[in-house]
Amino acid sequence: MRDSRIGIGVIGLGTVGGSVVRVLKRNRALVRARCGVGVEVRRAVDLDRDRLRAIGLPPKCLGSDFHAVLDDPEIRIVVELIGGVGVAREVVLGALRAGKHVVTANKALLAAHWQEIFALAQERGCAVGFEASVMAGVPVIRSIEEGLAGNVIPSLLGILNGTSNFILTRMAGRGMEFSRALDEARSKGLCEANASLDIDGHDAAQKLSILGSLSLGKWLPPAEVYREGIGGIEREDLVEALQEFDYVLRPLAIFKQTRAGIQARVHPTFIPKTHPLASVEDEFNAILINAGTAGPVTLVGKGAGADPAASGVISDVVHLARAIHQGGHEGMLLPLRPTKERVSVAPIEAVESKFYLRFSVLDRPGVFSFITGVLGKNRVSIASCHQRGRSERGAVPVIMTTHRAREGAMRKALAETDSATRIVKRKTIAIRIEE
Amino acid sequence: MRDSRIGIGVIGLGTVGGSVVRVLKRNRALVRARCGVGVEVRRAVDLDRDRLRAIGLPPKCLGSDFHAVLDDPEIRIVVELIGGVGVAREVVLGALRAGKHVVTANKALLAAHWQEIFALAQERGCAVGFEASVMAGVPVIRSIEEGLAGNVIPSLLGILNGTSNFILTRMAGRGMEFSRALDEARSKGLCEANASLDIDGHDAAQKLSILGSLSLGKWLPPAEVYREGIGGIEREDLVEALQEFDYVLRPLAIFKQTRAGIQARVHPTFIPKTHPLASVEDEFNAILINAGTAGPVTLVGKGAGADPAASGVISDVVHLARAIHQGGHEGMLLPLRPTKERVSVAPIEAVESKFYLRFSVLDRPGVFSFITGVLGKNRVSIASCHQRGRSERGAVPVIMTTHRAREGAMRKALAETDSATRIVKRKTIAIRIEE
Repeated sequence: MRDSRIGIGVIGLGTVGGSVVRVLKRNRALVRARCGVGVEVRRAVDLDRDRLRAIGLPPKCLGSDFHAVLDDPEIRIVVELIGGVGVAREVVLGALRAGKHVVTANKALLAAHWQEIFALAQERGCAVGFEASVMAGVPVIRSIEEGLAGNVIPSLLGILNGTSNFILTRMAGRGMEFSRALDEARSKGLCEANASLDIDGHDAAQKLSILGSLSLGKWLPPAEVYREGIGGIEREDLVEALQEFDYVLRPLAIFKQTRAGIQARVHPTFIPKTHPLASVEDEFNAILINAGTAGPVTLVGKGAGADPAASGVISDVVHLARAIHQGGHEGMLLPLRPTKERVSVAPIEAVESKFYLRFSVLDRPGVFSFITGVLGKNRVSIASCHQRGRSERGAVPVIMTTHRAREGAMRKALAETDSATRIVKRKTIAIRIEE
Repeated sequence: MRDSRIGIGVIGLGTVGGSVVRVLKRNRALVRARCGVGVEVRRAVDLDRDRLRAIGLPPKCLGSDFHAVLDDPEIRIVVELIGGVGVAREVVLGALRAGKHVVTANKALLAAHWQEIFALAQERGCAVGFEASVMAGVPVIRSIEEGLAGNVIPSLLGILNGTSNFILTRMAGRGMEFSRALDEARSKGLCEANASLDIDGHDAAQKLSILGSLSLGKWLPPAEVYREGIGGIEREDLVEALQEFDYVLRPLAIFKQTRAGIQARVHPTFIPKTHPLASVEDEFNAILINAGTAGPVTLVGKGAGADPAASGVISDVVHLARAIHQGGHEGMLLPLRPTKERVSVAPIEAVESKFYLRFSVLDRPGVFSFITGVLGKNRVSIASCHQRGRSERGAVPVIMTTHRAREGAMRKALAETDSATRIVKRKTIAIRIEE
């Protein structure tokens, strides 16, 4: 009878935590049917009394000290939703030490303390669920770990940060400049308090670190992920690339296993209008998993928000409760085996891409030959080229796309062209293309 | 040590069975890492000696009698890949009676014997995995059962038959007539031997029955699914609807839980060009799961083919092997509880849709007023209307779209208009619109 209900404790009653408690209550019968056992929130913890009162649980279940959760022998699953990497780390490690399973949506915590957390989980025979840490309610973790479990994953392409995708969509569709699109994202509540986490790619890099680690079965630290934000993007290039080449710009997170090494990078990227990720607009997230024998599998959905994140959290709770009820639990949730081994990523200079280039040059004889000469010398081969407008005095844009070229060679070439400041009037825009 | 490897038996070595054996061999280390235990094909059974020889297993593992698999105490999981509902049923029921778990890709078998199979599985404490039965390697079953487990699912919209989608894409994109597009699908090996299973919606109805049953937790028999094929579709309507209304036609399988009852239907359906399923072309499959708090989640991928199906089968094998290894297995794979309860679907007449209509009428005064009069009398309200071309003698097409109307009312109205054979020159085309 001990397991006639599985007790859980929810620590942190912000928007996600509040939604977890409410949905578990509302869908109680459904959750029982899917788990084979009931799930009961035995304790909810928050420092804010108003949040505690609002949650609708009996007063004896409420408190401000998370240790009450760790000390409750009837609680088998601890749901950490306070965020940050300080107290959250104490909560997660404390729960594991107490032999409890953990569910968290905290990508920053996982990114910072991956090895410590999973080593302890293994030692204590406990599971750590983190479905909600990437793409919120879209079941990408479960898909890689279970649905596509028999496959080597040669590559993943993701739109993992909704804020960046929203901004690029607005710039392309409504002709907004970057700063206005960012303001609109802010006013819609789409930005983290520190917007740099979104637009400079930190958030996406943490998520890619998690997905890459799962794909490889060993830790890919977020610091290894190459990162470029969307702050430097100009509207002109979005318009140009769509009109001339049918490309749309997306904030891609890219993971690849190649013969030349592992690639992990986050940067704005042009993709063809017909690409499976091209139709993913606004704040939606998506991932294209090249899943070996299964072929390309694309998942699209809301990658943020209290309810979608709560859905991801609850899916971990259901999975764990079912496993506990059935008597097998060690490693049931996610069979991650921590290793001391860390993944090394190939340097960005070794990555091969096609490129979109925009030169700003004086419209004079010899300029074109100079640029193509420098590119050719560096073995960068031009796929297409056009010049818009003419000007006797000011600079004109010359747009090119290239065939695949090593990034190191491209950088060397652009350093040389851009140092000819008499004819090249500003830093050349270079944006990678993925097809 | 008994579980240092989990033994499986593969019955049926056609293209899917062959791929399962090969991929399990090639990805042995990966599968071991994901299961926490090795997986070994202990026996492979087929009536065809050439297939047996080609599979590359030791001769002692090969045979033509499936009972050898059921009688082998070291085999814990039986993979049924022979297809059909005769011998396949014997295999599945025999395996469950022998206390073995089952993995199958056989949607026809599940559709025909759902209750018998799951009742026996429950009685024997065994699991039945069927990830590959819908959308092959795309993890839709696992997503509904696990990734989105905490959610009520108000609706599912799927492109579940790749052949039909291929044909409609070809008709729209390359201007082919239905019969030529069907021939091309045949020549590409996309059709079942009996093409009617694809183009008349039987295949999609079986898959929708499975997904609906999972969503409801009780059996939705395929015979309850309303079905209309794509055989009557004319190219003219694809062109018209795209040009005038930005609609594209997709072979949709639709499941909805509404206040007026449950809807389950398969029919060609217009959707806006911006709909998440509109960019799904050729033989790709997709499903849009309206997943309660998680919001809309879309999965896209290859819904057929030997390797994608093998990927789905292996994901079930991995899931089960992990559960067996951890000691908990009853109901771990999929916690379906068979009930005597069957789902009743609302009659199609009670379903409300928007409609696209094409009348073929004589171009005479009073005709338009007659048609709109009949529609109005039946409470069908017109959203837009236009007429292309004029003709003094022959019939001209009049295209309309309607606001939401009950199907029963629409049918009554069209019966009346079409019986006016002096002015309405052929049966009116009516295609549902989903937005």
